[in-house]
Amino acid sequence: MTSVALVAVGDELLLGDQLNGNGVTLGRALAGEGFSVVGHFVVGDDIGHISRAVRDAAARADVVIVCGGLGPTQDDLTREGLAEAAGVSLERDESLEAALRERFAARAGAAGVTVPAMNMRQANLPAGALPLANEVGTAPGVLILVNTRPVYALPGVPRELDAMVTAVVLPDLRARFPERPVVVQQTIRTVGLWESAVAEALAPEVDRTAGNPRIAFLASGGETRVVVTATGADTAAATALVDTTIGVARTALGSAVYDAASLEAEVVRLLGAAGATVACAESLTAGLLCGRLANVPGASDVLRGGMVAYATSLKSKFFGINRLRLFDQGAVSPETASAMARGVAEECGSTYGVALTGVAGPSPQEGNPPGTVYGAVHGPSGVASQLFTLPGDRAQVRALAVTSALAMLRVALLHDARPRRRR
Amino acid sequence: MTSVALVAVGDELLLGDQLNGNGVTLGRALAGEGFSVVGHFVVGDDIGHISRAVRDAAARADVVIVCGGLGPTQDDLTREGLAEAAGVSLERDESLEAALRERFAARAGAAGVTVPAMNMRQANLPAGALPLANEVGTAPGVLILVNTRPVYALPGVPRELDAMVTAVVLPDLRARFPERPVVVQQTIRTVGLWESAVAEALAPEVDRTAGNPRIAFLASGGETRVVVTATGADTAAATALVDTTIGVARTALGSAVYDAASLEAEVVRLLGAAGATVACAESLTAGLLCGRLANVPGASDVLRGGMVAYATSLKSKFFGINRLRLFDQGAVSPETASAMARGVAEECGSTYGVALTGVAGPSPQEGNPPGTVYGAVHGPSGVASQLFTLPGDRAQVRALAVTSALAMLRVALLHDARPRRRR
Repeated sequence: MTSVALVAVGDELLLGDQLNGNGVTLGRALAGEGFSVVGHFVVGDDIGHISRAVRDAAARADVVIVCGGLGPTQDDLTREGLAEAAGVSLERDESLEAALRERFAARAGAAGVTVPAMNMRQANLPAGALPLANEVGTAPGVLILVNTRPVYALPGVPRELDAMVTAVVLPDLRARFPERPVVVQQTIRTVGLWESAVAEALAPEVDRTAGNPRIAFLASGGETRVVVTATGADTAAATALVDTTIGVARTALGSAVYDAASLEAEVVRLLGAAGATVACAESLTAGLLCGRLANVPGASDVLRGGMVAYATSLKSKFFGINRLRLFDQGAVSPETASAMARGVAEECGSTYGVALTGVAGPSPQEGNPPGTVYGAVHGPSGVASQLFTLPGDRAQVRALAVTSALAMLRVALLHDARPRRRR
Repeated sequence: MTSVALVAVGDELLLGDQLNGNGVTLGRALAGEGFSVVGHFVVGDDIGHISRAVRDAAARADVVIVCGGLGPTQDDLTREGLAEAAGVSLERDESLEAALRERFAARAGAAGVTVPAMNMRQANLPAGALPLANEVGTAPGVLILVNTRPVYALPGVPRELDAMVTAVVLPDLRARFPERPVVVQQTIRTVGLWESAVAEALAPEVDRTAGNPRIAFLASGGETRVVVTATGADTAAATALVDTTIGVARTALGSAVYDAASLEAEVVRLLGAAGATVACAESLTAGLLCGRLANVPGASDVLRGGMVAYATSLKSKFFGINRLRLFDQGAVSPETASAMARGVAEECGSTYGVALTGVAGPSPQEGNPPGTVYGAVHGPSGVASQLFTLPGDRAQVRALAVTSALAMLRVALLHDARPRRRR
């Protein structure tokens, strides 16, 4: 199997200032294409360390991918490190220089603007290297041979790295290494089950498959994804392995499984299928629920809007809750959540109203500890509320509350979509 | 400076199934104690790869810390890798065996319970190695010398790793290396400047300080942090170095610098100082602006609430914008943004109203391309609107819009807080 070694450059990674998310992006992309990632070196912003890591990586793997250190500042030293690793000098590339000038001119809205000297460093390349187009940022990538191995250097900004992996690196690797095992990967998403419950339900299948397909469980924010990855001599063989395991998983996990790319996309899809619309009433999440629904392109077909009543007095004003009743039942209560869901649907003229009220922390509120959250969904079948007791700090409680509300809305939509029995 | 190299073991890290959070924990803990982390190797569950990484690490640094691969299953191979790296055999440790039996007996609630053969592997140690107590899990750590360097192997489970770093590794390292420099770090945050502009403003200081203090620039979401890290013989010396550079940076960057832990915290602080409140009117961001303000603990003192008018018809209903005028000026216009800011402040009874309307993409709207965003702030000095042309995909446009609106509000608050001249 063609091997790849990764080199990540940046003091911030060694000092613990930043998680190495690019390692996840690259690992997943390469594994999905039938490459074997055999090692990952993280080094600081130091020419000697970069060049040594690149040489070591090129001694160990067929391909090297370097990320980070291509920016314009003094501590961006990957170009210099690559030159040292390849034993060549750094030279100004005229096409890169022209492209940089053009980009700066466009940004300034005028031709002939001066490019700061620091940014001009991005027009330098090790002798014999090829610049790689970066369509979403100013830092061009670099392709150079070290020890006859192709070394791709990519910017560390995740958005730019993602774009270049897809547009430049993977196509080039596919062309260089056509003989790869076929890898087929499929993900199913679940909501409403703990990661351990998902893993337990699939434990017999993990034993049976013994690594092919590989079954991985990725939990985040109250959802668990099951990633099934098979390798085979051809697509049909790998697909058959994946399909069998996915079938077993669907049966084992039942209605916890959904098919869209995200929970919010699944909810938007279900709303669209029902010809329904939604509006959100929020307190502790203060707009994050509504904002997450709007992540989905085309959400405007089903999302009317929302109201955030962070101050308690706005809860009565916005949702028509009697002030005395609000005082009696408390802002953090199933009654208030239900009234918010009903009120926002009326105000926004939507089929469904979803509400969240609760305590994000760090302090308790009205005697309720942080993590106490009530969700409510108002819709054609009436209104339902639910208590969630959510773990974690303020940010986690708010994120889990959003996921919990979306899960409630999904259940209501699935319920309302069922064919009704004649009475 | 005493150098440390890290080795993380686990296929899941190479395959992109998991973020390497232990790297952040270790990097931060070691940097804060005056150690220099010079490299971080990530390898898969393979004895040869582990032993090679450990030997390479021990050749490069004074101390090596390995994490992961100490569990009971077949793919936990760090013990074997350490033995190979040290050129010794693996032996059963009687004290570990007794401890394991005891732990299993306690778990089963009965003495003399059988320890599964797989778990008994956790009682193996490379010859000459010292077991390290793990108070929160079953996987003991290992201390062994490779190339005369101390190599600490710790479990990969974050909770267990965290506990052992604090209880075992740091105390032992402090005792072994009493002569460490003191490290002092300070961060200043800026908004409204490109990363390259921040770096350029501080280029002379980067040259002058020549690495101590180290000056790092971390850009994300339209903001740039400047992290200044100095080492010195004592706290006073290191602090003096940091203070000087921070002073230079403040002068060079002027009003772009703010002091709170985040831009939203700075805005909440300024609102609190002014005795003012705020409400948000949102379209493309659909609640993310309001939600971000509520990230700040104590935001309820200044944040009244917000209204999301995702559907155009709600823009007239919520903010009292005449429907014909809305049709004429367009939903994405400075007039609409201004009317939204004024309207939400009135509806929510707040001192300030902040509004965002624009095109998140992927499709254009009313002839405006994605990234066209109008922000507006309504306050005691009247209303101001601003056009932002934001780069990136739907998610990035929305995130940058939120930052842009917070930056506008900050400028308005700073302006309104200035002592007024007598006319």
